[in-house]
Amino acid sequence: MKKAGAIDIGGTKTLVGVIGADGHVMSAMRIPTFRGDCFACLAQAAVEFEKCLCELGLAASDLAGIGVNMPGMVDSSNGILIDAPFARWRNVNVSGFLGGLLKTESISVENDVNACAIGEHFFGGDGGDFLWITASTGIGGAFFSGGRLVRGSGFCAGELGHVKVEYDRPALCPCGQSGCVEAHASGSAIGRMLLEKAGENPSLKAEIKKRGLAFDAATCAMLAREGVEEAAEIFNTAGMYIGRALGATANLLNPSKIYMGGGVANSLDLFIGALKKEFESCAVGQCSDVNIIKTALGYEAALKGAAASAFLSGGRGQQNLTSMKQGINA
Amino acid sequence: MKKAGAIDIGGTKTLVGVIGADGHVMSAMRIPTFRGDCFACLAQAAVEFEKCLCELGLAASDLAGIGVNMPGMVDSSNGILIDAPFARWRNVNVSGFLGGLLKTESISVENDVNACAIGEHFFGGDGGDFLWITASTGIGGAFFSGGRLVRGSGFCAGELGHVKVEYDRPALCPCGQSGCVEAHASGSAIGRMLLEKAGENPSLKAEIKKRGLAFDAATCAMLAREGVEEAAEIFNTAGMYIGRALGATANLLNPSKIYMGGGVANSLDLFIGALKKEFESCAVGQCSDVNIIKTALGYEAALKGAAASAFLSGGRGQQNLTSMKQGINA
Repeated sequence: MKKAGAIDIGGTKTLVGVIGADGHVMSAMRIPTFRGDCFACLAQAAVEFEKCLCELGLAASDLAGIGVNMPGMVDSSNGILIDAPFARWRNVNVSGFLGGLLKTESISVENDVNACAIGEHFFGGDGGDFLWITASTGIGGAFFSGGRLVRGSGFCAGELGHVKVEYDRPALCPCGQSGCVEAHASGSAIGRMLLEKAGENPSLKAEIKKRGLAFDAATCAMLAREGVEEAAEIFNTAGMYIGRALGATANLLNPSKIYMGGGVANSLDLFIGALKKEFESCAVGQCSDVNIIKTALGYEAALKGAAASAFLSGGRGQQNLTSMKQGINA
Repeated sequence: MKKAGAIDIGGTKTLVGVIGADGHVMSAMRIPTFRGDCFACLAQAAVEFEKCLCELGLAASDLAGIGVNMPGMVDSSNGILIDAPFARWRNVNVSGFLGGLLKTESISVENDVNACAIGEHFFGGDGGDFLWITASTGIGGAFFSGGRLVRGSGFCAGELGHVKVEYDRPALCPCGQSGCVEAHASGSAIGRMLLEKAGENPSLKAEIKKRGLAFDAATCAMLAREGVEEAAEIFNTAGMYIGRALGATANLLNPSKIYMGGGVANSLDLFIGALKKEFESCAVGQCSDVNIIKTALGYEAALKGAAASAFLSGGRGQQNLTSMKQGINA
């Protein structure tokens, strides 16, 4: 079976691995992302990646290609990271640098959220019009239209997290604006709401502290599942706001499916009711027939997406996503 | 020079004509749209269209094709009008019926707002990522990504008019929902706001009545240009709401240009300031570099768009918009 290399550089962690054309993770390793010099970060990832190859007795030349995700704005046609504000990385020739280290020209570079959508397209088999949403610390999106990724004029399409969902009581967003869905429904926002609720309810605050839990989305989900009303309310609020952002997106793009990934997606059952209720009052009739589901790609969605980019580029080292599974014989 | 036929069936008026490959309108006629039986409406348009051909001494076979716009949901790959709620037209084989009447197989059928964007792509020469917005009685949109029209899974992408822009004091929209930009910034909404302002200000009301003016967007524009403060405020409000809808769209699609057409676009100078101010607080930094301009296609944008559809289909009678001006030698 054909296989591809995958390097997923995230804001806090980096995953590297080798993935089969059927989506099977043959080998994977995880390290913290080095947030200093970008080249040092890439070199560290390359060392780990070579360990994976070694473990499987493979060389880079045995792979269909290597896909690399970067957490920022990417010019995938030239393999360049344009900007990753969280680490102040700018204009880094990722494909050139990693290609030199790993001795291959078959490096595809992609934005991490786009990579997830490419993974859903390639491994999940969705050849139509769909939206991918990653809801984790922040919120991001990516959209396929007629089997092609919509990239935008400046490689920035899919900034779903910054669609405004609250104009009258807007919360501040890390982007500097306010009222963004990321500020009202991301994992960080859920954690902030939990802290606020605990501030109003001393017994809730005491309970969380007593159990040594963090004020974050995972704690909020645990409490909601235990029947704590405030925690359930927080997910209803977050779901309502995500429903607003998805309603606007459905009106503009008319997808047939919306796939959700990221840590917050693990709590989809806790907020899908509130999400759908608001979605139905925001999406106009002809655009409201959308299936909103959790991705089946799981925790390694972005890593698998990196491999999908490599398979789809067919070893040319750049994205040319015109048809699904083109040239792949598993 | 090559030429194409164009039939633009609107909600109230129908334009027919013959357009050169350079966008020159060689002949055009205008009739009220017959809102009864759809086939009768199409037959009436075909009769007028044949008058245009006759005037120019042409036959249908002299044309690169004939483009037909329908005011509703269109399956352009099969030439079918799926639904036009305003007249209760459903599942009409437009290309088959008109092809029989006009004795040609080269009929392209398109949604009217999509046709405007196709016209901007073809005659305006925009080969990139851009948004078209028609602001008239209602508000509609269409989006080109990488030189291709984004159609959506059910042919309904671009429902920009129903993006929600007001959650706390939402106005009712003809779609049955509330808070849509169409309900807050369309020509109808501007007319409604003028009526409300006149209700609060008897001297404004008397002035409008004395001059025999209608409570509509054209009157509001005239008054704003004469320095009537209430009328100027209405355009500021409408511009602010359009800025919200365009901000959300820019975040999702990252266009480089937004072209505005329709009657309300003639007043763009009256609200561009308010629009841009709100747009800049809604579009995230990396998606905010967008040129928002009035289309150069003018009043006949949709008619020219119908011709552009015909040129681009290359006489195949269906849309296959993969590259600009493909196969056209003007």
